[in-house]
Amino acid sequence: MVNLAIKELLMIPGPTMVPLDILLAQAGQMINHRGPSFKQIQDKIVTKGRDLFKTKNGSVFILTCSGTGGMEAAVVNTINPGEQVLVLKVGEFGERFVKICKAFGAVVDVLSVEPGQALQPTAVAKQLANYAPGNLKAVLFQQNETSTGVLNPVKEIAALIRKQSPDTLVIVDSVSGLLTADLQMDAWDLDVVCAGSQKAFMTAPGVALLAVSSRAMKAIEACKNPRFYFDLVAAKKFLETGETPWTPAISVIYGMDKAYDLIFQEGVENIFKRHELLMKATRAGVRATGCKLLVTDERVASRAVTAILPPEGVDAEALRKEVKNKWGVVFAAGQGALKGKIFRITHLGYTDPKDTFAALACLEMALRSLGSPVELGKGVAAAQEAFMQVEPVVA
Amino acid sequence: MVNLAIKELLMIPGPTMVPLDILLAQAGQMINHRGPSFKQIQDKIVTKGRDLFKTKNGSVFILTCSGTGGMEAAVVNTINPGEQVLVLKVGEFGERFVKICKAFGAVVDVLSVEPGQALQPTAVAKQLANYAPGNLKAVLFQQNETSTGVLNPVKEIAALIRKQSPDTLVIVDSVSGLLTADLQMDAWDLDVVCAGSQKAFMTAPGVALLAVSSRAMKAIEACKNPRFYFDLVAAKKFLETGETPWTPAISVIYGMDKAYDLIFQEGVENIFKRHELLMKATRAGVRATGCKLLVTDERVASRAVTAILPPEGVDAEALRKEVKNKWGVVFAAGQGALKGKIFRITHLGYTDPKDTFAALACLEMALRSLGSPVELGKGVAAAQEAFMQVEPVVA
Repeated sequence: MVNLAIKELLMIPGPTMVPLDILLAQAGQMINHRGPSFKQIQDKIVTKGRDLFKTKNGSVFILTCSGTGGMEAAVVNTINPGEQVLVLKVGEFGERFVKICKAFGAVVDVLSVEPGQALQPTAVAKQLANYAPGNLKAVLFQQNETSTGVLNPVKEIAALIRKQSPDTLVIVDSVSGLLTADLQMDAWDLDVVCAGSQKAFMTAPGVALLAVSSRAMKAIEACKNPRFYFDLVAAKKFLETGETPWTPAISVIYGMDKAYDLIFQEGVENIFKRHELLMKATRAGVRATGCKLLVTDERVASRAVTAILPPEGVDAEALRKEVKNKWGVVFAAGQGALKGKIFRITHLGYTDPKDTFAALACLEMALRSLGSPVELGKGVAAAQEAFMQVEPVVA
Repeated sequence: MVNLAIKELLMIPGPTMVPLDILLAQAGQMINHRGPSFKQIQDKIVTKGRDLFKTKNGSVFILTCSGTGGMEAAVVNTINPGEQVLVLKVGEFGERFVKICKAFGAVVDVLSVEPGQALQPTAVAKQLANYAPGNLKAVLFQQNETSTGVLNPVKEIAALIRKQSPDTLVIVDSVSGLLTADLQMDAWDLDVVCAGSQKAFMTAPGVALLAVSSRAMKAIEACKNPRFYFDLVAAKKFLETGETPWTPAISVIYGMDKAYDLIFQEGVENIFKRHELLMKATRAGVRATGCKLLVTDERVASRAVTAILPPEGVDAEALRKEVKNKWGVVFAAGQGALKGKIFRITHLGYTDPKDTFAALACLEMALRSLGSPVELGKGVAAAQEAFMQVEPVVA
């Protein structure tokens, strides 16, 4: 009996693995969050953050909360009780938007798709036709749906909304999407976009970023919803003096500060390409092991996480346990109705081909241990072929 | 152009990768090295260190130096100028013993083997027959020869020396060997054994451990060699008060303190088994890529590092460069006469199968890029098969 899992390879879609440089940055000593050093860091994060959301006019706020807090902040600051909203739901995180909107008294319509499907512009257009002009306060949806591994066509959906319902706020949860695939807040005319430190930012959980258009800022200032911790009117006032209204998660913000350095060093467009390639290689590798992909259309496959159906006769949870306990690789479980039916391999944030190879090799061994007739090395080979389609940077 | 090497996988035979827990331990604040906290750490390292060298009667010293410093300490404390020694040389580190002994005035005989061969007991016995009783002060050799990837049969060689030349000191460089394969100081009657923090201890470089038998301690006390920094008579005196004669590398010693916790948690015998299995899997994988192994006899193959000849027509240095620059995997170069002819993949210290898979997959891709007709995934599959021969611990 030998322990062959002395290292852990964390392949869940957040928290993701954190580079040592960021972990060490997070170990920095505390500072006065009302002093000049904090102002400097916050200024950098909100100013350069505009380049990540691709907005010149929008405001970026740092909130001390998880991604869900960011989603709640988007809702409570913009939507009054009794107002009509539409949630475009492709999975569990769509359902979370539904729950948040209902908790704060909105009238919620939901347009759903089958698990593994992305939003269909025609279906969305048809749904939008139901609302009289000025009667739909907001449409809310995910750029990347983590539970099913779907990348929604944000640009097309946003264009439809703006065309059919010009004053409606477009609220996009990009918590697991930002930096994995393109998102252009100004060009696509999005109103509120939220992101989270523990995803492609490669940082510990605890900080959400919220980008807000000037259209949304007007709605926020007019919004009557009772709110305090997440009040963006207060946040805007404090931002001008380089502060946050309440005590911020300083360690995580140190991490974000360092993450920005790494992100701009690699280049945002290169990060998109890396994620796309990791997705393609993971999908090719997984298919070669005899597993099935939940998302069949690669064009809408998440760049952050791949949802996988194990082969006939193999239990998803038993497989996750085998891979974790024997080989030290952590895959994510299914959520909601997919719990026990799928497992998910992430390729989000601080990951590169070496992680893909290790994950696929361990997946193959676990499948074989559980009786699946897998050919060892075949999944790895398929991933290698995918990676070799591009010319990597030579350092 | 995508950067697919955002992570570095360091597969050289020291410094090896350091677990985060040890890196963080190394970040501890400085303490007075003449106070009770340091005494406590040193006591632990030297007392429990006896279990690593497998000695009840020997003394263990902490030296602030590299492994080479440990080798020098072994020589300058035991061998007087003009005394006859025999170095059993299987590679570059054997040559280092030759240089150190000569630098301090010993009369040095050298018994060499071809690169990739281990010490042959019959040849050693024949050489030992040349010395009149009492005329051979010491025999020096490596447990693990890092330059060629050879594991010497320490037990057999030591037994021969003790039988043919009972008073001769047996001095073993176990810098890259300790914890990768069994070494029993008392049972095999070894006199001086040295180890280094940056090898299987998974810690930063800067500390050597020296284990000394009571026979060697008498020689040390009688030794006339001029010495100061490495003087073990002084070290022994200070050890009794829980100190070192000179300022120790406190951060590295913090790391060693934490490394001991990890080592005893995994278990010394389990660590041997893990290294043996990583060796077998690496060798199987490498062979399947079309590369050749420098050490053909697996029984004497290093558990720490595998020396590899690239396929016909592939330059070893070009291959190392390709693997490093495109895929972020660092293999070691050849040393001495093997420079440019071989490369070396380590499996020493903080490594597990996931590293092997990543390294082999990247090696395969680099071989293909350099025109070698390698079948992708085949090396990984061979390693998978090797790992699946054992029943891993289920956590």
